[in-house]
Amino acid sequence: MDHIAGLLSLRERQPFQLYATDRVIKMLTANPIFNVLDAGLVRRCGVALDQTFKLENRPDAGSEVFAEMFAVPGKVALYMEDEQAGPNFGTVAEDTVGLKIVDRGTGRSFFYIPGCAAMPDSLALRLRGADLVFFDGTTWIDNEMQHTGVGQKTARRMGHMCMSGSDGSIAACASLGIRRKIFIHINNTNPVLLEGSPQRAEAEDAGWEIAWDGMEIVL
Amino acid sequence: MDHIAGLLSLRERQPFQLYATDRVIKMLTANPIFNVLDAGLVRRCGVALDQTFKLENRPDAGSEVFAEMFAVPGKVALYMEDEQAGPNFGTVAEDTVGLKIVDRGTGRSFFYIPGCAAMPDSLALRLRGADLVFFDGTTWIDNEMQHTGVGQKTARRMGHMCMSGSDGSIAACASLGIRRKIFIHINNTNPVLLEGSPQRAEAEDAGWEIAWDGMEIVL
Repeated sequence: MDHIAGLLSLRERQPFQLYATDRVIKMLTANPIFNVLDAGLVRRCGVALDQTFKLENRPDAGSEVFAEMFAVPGKVALYMEDEQAGPNFGTVAEDTVGLKIVDRGTGRSFFYIPGCAAMPDSLALRLRGADLVFFDGTTWIDNEMQHTGVGQKTARRMGHMCMSGSDGSIAACASLGIRRKIFIHINNTNPVLLEGSPQRAEAEDAGWEIAWDGMEIVL
Repeated sequence: MDHIAGLLSLRERQPFQLYATDRVIKMLTANPIFNVLDAGLVRRCGVALDQTFKLENRPDAGSEVFAEMFAVPGKVALYMEDEQAGPNFGTVAEDTVGLKIVDRGTGRSFFYIPGCAAMPDSLALRLRGADLVFFDGTTWIDNEMQHTGVGQKTARRMGHMCMSGSDGSIAACASLGIRRKIFIHINNTNPVLLEGSPQRAEAEDAGWEIAWDGMEIVL
């Protein structure tokens, strides 16, 4: 939801290409409201996981920017959950993905992983030594929703690692040699958003930056 | 679209009632993405045109606030257009509606009409002497999209009256004795948004206010 709702705001007859897994393309097709994106201007391109593809139609068409999607631990979108399907809610590989974007001109690359429920060895290996990683910063502690009185679900139940603790994202990334680490997708209950909070200090001491609206990054 | 896309941002387990025409309820049902609004918390209430109904579940439950929806000239939503259906694109009465909200405690009321393609006598009669009208302020001139280079369609083709000129909304409302008139739904091409512009001065001289984010009104 966080990654498709904005499509409804991109309907000003602006041409662009929409890259997504077949599962997401199918979901968009099943919701005719997304026809606000004129098919003559917005081409929907289904792409397979673990395949590198070139980003087309960029304003700086001379560049050589490629992308790759890969599965990360997560969960099916809340509104598509089917509790009858059992404890994993019928999750498939395409339910939660990360992105790697590579500029073949400069050789620089970054990862964009806004939702991630755990750090298996395979993902840690992928991120090792990366120039830049944007990572899921939803909550500080796993039971933050209960703690702040806004909900009952744990971060894990929502498909997110928390930042702190021995199984949190800060610990999981500590020894991966990532050059620049930036938390994104931060819930409004997360005290790391508060400048001057001890949690903010702890994240920054561990080498993390907290993303902000309008942030620009040069690799 | 302008009036339903925001539903996707109201999914934080907040209970409320959703009032809409049957045509809109049906469209929401046809788009499963709106199931992000948990049916246990958000009740969808289909209401008929020209019927007064009480607004339930308001925080100040003691008040007696009623609403009524009525058809206004307009058009079918762009993404639902079917050019095969002929020049009126199959428009039905429920494609564009206005709202009247009445507080039976104070007797005060206001109209909310964010899209309106013309001012027939029946609508002028309805608005005559109103305490407050929020009205469609999409464009200043009919061919504003072409004029500013952002599109080909006229305001009328998009289902909107322009503000200026002999068939514009300022002229149409001039003699209706409305106590307070506020333009809403203003496109980013409309020069009335610019403080100090001659168009802004002309609208204000005609007794109109230009709505702004965070505006609060006491009737």
